[in-house]
Amino acid sequence: MRLSIALFDGFTALDIVGGYEVLANVPGMEVEFVASARGIVAADTRRLGLVAYRSFAEVLDTDILYVPGGPGVVPALTDDELLVWLRTVHATTTWTVGICNGVALLAAAGTMKGRVVTTNWSWRERVASYGATVLPVRYHRDGKIVTSAGVSASIDAALSLAASIAGESVAATIRLGIEYYPDPPGGAGSADDAPGDAKALIKAFEETVAPARLAGVQPPFACR
Amino acid sequence: MRLSIALFDGFTALDIVGGYEVLANVPGMEVEFVASARGIVAADTRRLGLVAYRSFAEVLDTDILYVPGGPGVVPALTDDELLVWLRTVHATTTWTVGICNGVALLAAAGTMKGRVVTTNWSWRERVASYGATVLPVRYHRDGKIVTSAGVSASIDAALSLAASIAGESVAATIRLGIEYYPDPPGGAGSADDAPGDAKALIKAFEETVAPARLAGVQPPFACR
Repeated sequence: MRLSIALFDGFTALDIVGGYEVLANVPGMEVEFVASARGIVAADTRRLGLVAYRSFAEVLDTDILYVPGGPGVVPALTDDELLVWLRTVHATTTWTVGICNGVALLAAAGTMKGRVVTTNWSWRERVASYGATVLPVRYHRDGKIVTSAGVSASIDAALSLAASIAGESVAATIRLGIEYYPDPPGGAGSADDAPGDAKALIKAFEETVAPARLAGVQPPFACR
Repeated sequence: MRLSIALFDGFTALDIVGGYEVLANVPGMEVEFVASARGIVAADTRRLGLVAYRSFAEVLDTDILYVPGGPGVVPALTDDELLVWLRTVHATTTWTVGICNGVALLAAAGTMKGRVVTTNWSWRERVASYGATVLPVRYHRDGKIVTSAGVSASIDAALSLAASIAGESVAATIRLGIEYYPDPPGGAGSADDAPGDAKALIKAFEETVAPARLAGVQPPFACR
């Protein structure tokens, strides 16, 4: 089975690596990182670079299309080359996975109308504006479409998908392999329980700091 | 504050990105990826490449030294250049972070004798053999040394460290930013509760499949 992870400038690394670390360990999985061109793609922090070794033109179909989120989603929402690629490849998949506000990218590509999905807590209205029904849950499956809440929820969504693909026992073994028995400081809860001032800080970060960094900070490595 | 993340061939990506995604968002943090030479370093799957843009020779001190684990730890345990670098930089840090069996690397570098630490469930005896006391917990702090259990525990350990550095409120805001309200399929628990056959599968993977892949599978990108 082939897992194609889409990279675009300004992705959030944990959106990718949370799900990758689970799905890459499903027996028989072949993983590839795909971007508009081969080369290094910079994360939202401008300090982490991941390597794409297939271009969009080289990947016309796949088994699992995996779309992360991040501050780079905002400019990517008007990137026609990316949106056309997502739409084209999605039509060929067995599974399509949207993480965080990467769900908005899939929606902008026209793949989410009438679908039931989840997304990052701060992107629910935006994703709903594309005609999707958005649930305030950590992950959700609607047919072949698996979506997750923000960033770290990629781990939970991928474990659920691993169970769908290879069975509960394989998923439980992968869980042991990544020792995923979380014990977050602060205990259980959800984004909806977070204090209003923390939500306001994150919103302000997403609306001002993150875009300014994307536009203005040069990565310390050469990007394609 | 400066966060220096050590890369070596065959790291496990989530060991790095789990903690990076938390610590990079601590206000004022400067992140750098460091390896024996600048360039792309391949993860244990041989399918994910991360960019190092500082060499060991360029980094003589730091505030936070961050050491991930992975199948690459086994060959790295006899890599004198890496061990000397870890020992030298550790002597200058405010915090030293060991994730998963990366704790064994720090121990082999001579930094863990008499310390109380944790590590990946399958590496406890090995780490203890270097003179550390190993606790079966998700993360632990002993003085300036913060250690975590396997892979995904890097998130919990880093949130705890973020609270030590910048306060509980900042850590809680970062937690919201990465939407870390885990809901793993299978519910709560720990590696110690996992079925014996799952443990045997992971041990076999670590002892045979992962080393064979490291030695025999060429990454689809050029490494340094």
